Amino acid sequence: MTVQDRWLLPEGIEEILPRDARRLECLRRTLVDLYDLWGYELVMPPFIEFLDALLTGTGHDLQLQTFTLTDQLSGRMLGVRADMTPQVARIDAHQLARELPNRLCYLGTVLRTRSDGFGGSRSPLQVGAELYGHVGIESDLEVISLMLETLARAGVADVHLDLGHVGLFRALAAQAGLDRETERELFERTQKKALPDIHAMLAGALPAPAAMMLLRLPELNGGIEVIGEARSVLAAGGEPVMAALEHLARTAEVLERRFPELPIHVDLAELRGYHYHTGLVFAAYVPGQGQAVARGGRYDGIGRVFGRARPATGFSADLKTLLELGECSALAPAAVFAPASDEPALEARVRELRAQGVRVIRALPGMPEDARGLGCEGGLVRHGDAWVVEPIGT
Amino acid sequence: MTVQDRWLLPEGIEEILPRDARRLECLRRTLVDLYDLWGYELVMPPFIEFLDALLTGTGHDLQLQTFTLTDQLSGRMLGVRADMTPQVARIDAHQLARELPNRLCYLGTVLRTRSDGFGGSRSPLQVGAELYGHVGIESDLEVISLMLETLARAGVADVHLDLGHVGLFRALAAQAGLDRETERELFERTQKKALPDIHAMLAGALPAPAAMMLLRLPELNGGIEVIGEARSVLAAGGEPVMAALEHLARTAEVLERRFPELPIHVDLAELRGYHYHTGLVFAAYVPGQGQAVARGGRYDGIGRVFGRARPATGFSADLKTLLELGECSALAPAAVFAPASDEPALEARVRELRAQGVRVIRALPGMPEDARGLGCEGGLVRHGDAWVVEPIGT
Repeated sequence: MTVQDRWLLPEGIEEILPRDARRLECLRRTLVDLYDLWGYELVMPPFIEFLDALLTGTGHDLQLQTFTLTDQLSGRMLGVRADMTPQVARIDAHQLARELPNRLCYLGTVLRTRSDGFGGSRSPLQVGAELYGHVGIESDLEVISLMLETLARAGVADVHLDLGHVGLFRALAAQAGLDRETERELFERTQKKALPDIHAMLAGALPAPAAMMLLRLPELNGGIEVIGEARSVLAAGGEPVMAALEHLARTAEVLERRFPELPIHVDLAELRGYHYHTGLVFAAYVPGQGQAVARGGRYDGIGRVFGRARPATGFSADLKTLLELGECSALAPAAVFAPASDEPALEARVRELRAQGVRVIRALPGMPEDARGLGCEGGLVRHGDAWVVEPIGT
Repeated sequence: MTVQDRWLLPEGIEEILPRDARRLECLRRTLVDLYDLWGYELVMPPFIEFLDALLTGTGHDLQLQTFTLTDQLSGRMLGVRADMTPQVARIDAHQLARELPNRLCYLGTVLRTRSDGFGGSRSPLQVGAELYGHVGIESDLEVISLMLETLARAGVADVHLDLGHVGLFRALAAQAGLDRETERELFERTQKKALPDIHAMLAGALPAPAAMMLLRLPELNGGIEVIGEARSVLAAGGEPVMAALEHLARTAEVLERRFPELPIHVDLAELRGYHYHTGLVFAAYVPGQGQAVARGGRYDGIGRVFGRARPATGFSADLKTLLELGECSALAPAAVFAPASDEPALEARVRELRAQGVRVIRALPGMPEDARGLGCEGGLVRHGDAWVVEPIGT
């Protein structure tokens, strides 16, 4: 292994150097404070868990994305979290014995065996908020609003919102009598809008009305008017389909009122995210980014495997992506340079300045020091008994 | 796997629930701000790296403690960081092309295959600061002072400081002509102060003066006066031994002056920490805790394997331990409860309150809500056209 090799990091794994680390810390605080103001309490799920607990109820996607480890103490398999949402659902399920709504937020590194579109990173810094215990559109609206506020605080401009509803696809697939594996395969083809593939898959089931409607799903995308169009195209879908469209329509209507400037796009084949979504799903996009910058949706019942089924909705984003696309800036404050002397009066002055919030950098004897390069605009100079801050020449 | 099992976390792996997460976030910010005021810039090393880069130069201890993973992309072995110090040294080594001193700090989860005394945890939240590029006592003093300030900010009381110097042991072992394996074995026995075992090991080398002195090392612990005693006991050790004692004496002298209330203990067999230490080592203890609550020391030359040998000294601690032992409290602010209504005037008032830093929790229609339980002391009530905050009865 050469010296050069030791500097290399694995593909999709990044280190964050001071300038960006300062910006990231600033954005982190802004968002944690924002969630706090909305009543979302911070939790910190563990980095590793028993693999079977980690993957419970979340499906296949997450399994392939999860790094596994062997626990020397228990001999069992451990997994490194690839998504914090299921962890937070577990915390909700066992943390509270009551049936009241619960708001939680989180922020932390997740690892993925392969990059999956968070800008090619395999170590996104996932941030998100989840609302448990409520089924109505008010909770969907609250988390969508909080997601949009997150993007605004991060300085991400030109956001547009995609709305979808996984319930449509699920109801139609059930009506078409698709088995689990076929539904799964169709799900993937539908979210890719691969029309000929969808056609080929459904050929055997045609002309059953549900299969016909599944074929039409990928066409149903555009402005909010698509919802009205879907009401007639999917009319034969019955109550579950109409209820999902009604939910979508009401949500879109309130969002239009709350965010008059926000472009809203409806895509009834929008099924992305993990397989645990059950209802309304949403994603925020910005021009020039193929991947969503934030996304979320409803995943009712995720807590069932932990002994407590609860309605749930939430969103998540990658803090590194927000930092890259946003306008968050955080400059190091101007500092004061203090000479290398152990004089008690200087010690006291340095302590006093720092207590006032002034950054003070101590000189180290025998070393060249670039006070300007360290961001120092002033230096401590002795005048009689007093140490005074004077400007440093450039 | 039963429902109950899915709640279990692996031994030594913790999740942090809202009350503690709030305190942890508060302490985290306090410390990052403190380090910033001292000129230490935050860096965020990656969670995983190629195993050989991660273990380079840090020795055997870290290897046994490191979880390993297989990288599907490169086919190479990856390691999960068990200590961030070597990562930060790598960042220093390649980040800057200049020879100026560099101050870096960090904060993040590390994982250990086995718990090693951070309160039984296998996932400490390591926090630390490192100063690169300077060899004198001033840099040792700066990091020790910052470590003590860290403990003070965390509200950890009754701290006492242990000082040692790994150079003494290393110089004597070299003079006694011990091979690497014997030195290593003796190192471990010495830090355990296992006198009969040390005697047995050195029997063959006796009565060589260096071996005789190695036997005396574990006795040399007590107050600062031990340094004077060591000057005569280890007199035959020559220049490197005398230089190490002089360094220790001067450091202790300044610390006594700066921190007159601080109990200082000198222990010349204090060799703990990882095997990369080379000079002055130090640790902070509190009554009732067998393990140090913070520790550090000098590890000159650690960057050599990355192509740039640099003097270095620093300290680290576990934020969770500091939180447990300290007095840091952070209570959720009083909140205001807002009724479930989509009225624009209410929306505007909620937005306004949050912009003023008031936590507002929205009611969700159809749900029981415990406003008091959510920490709400006020509720928004409509008076004519205005929404007013009124106290909520208990």
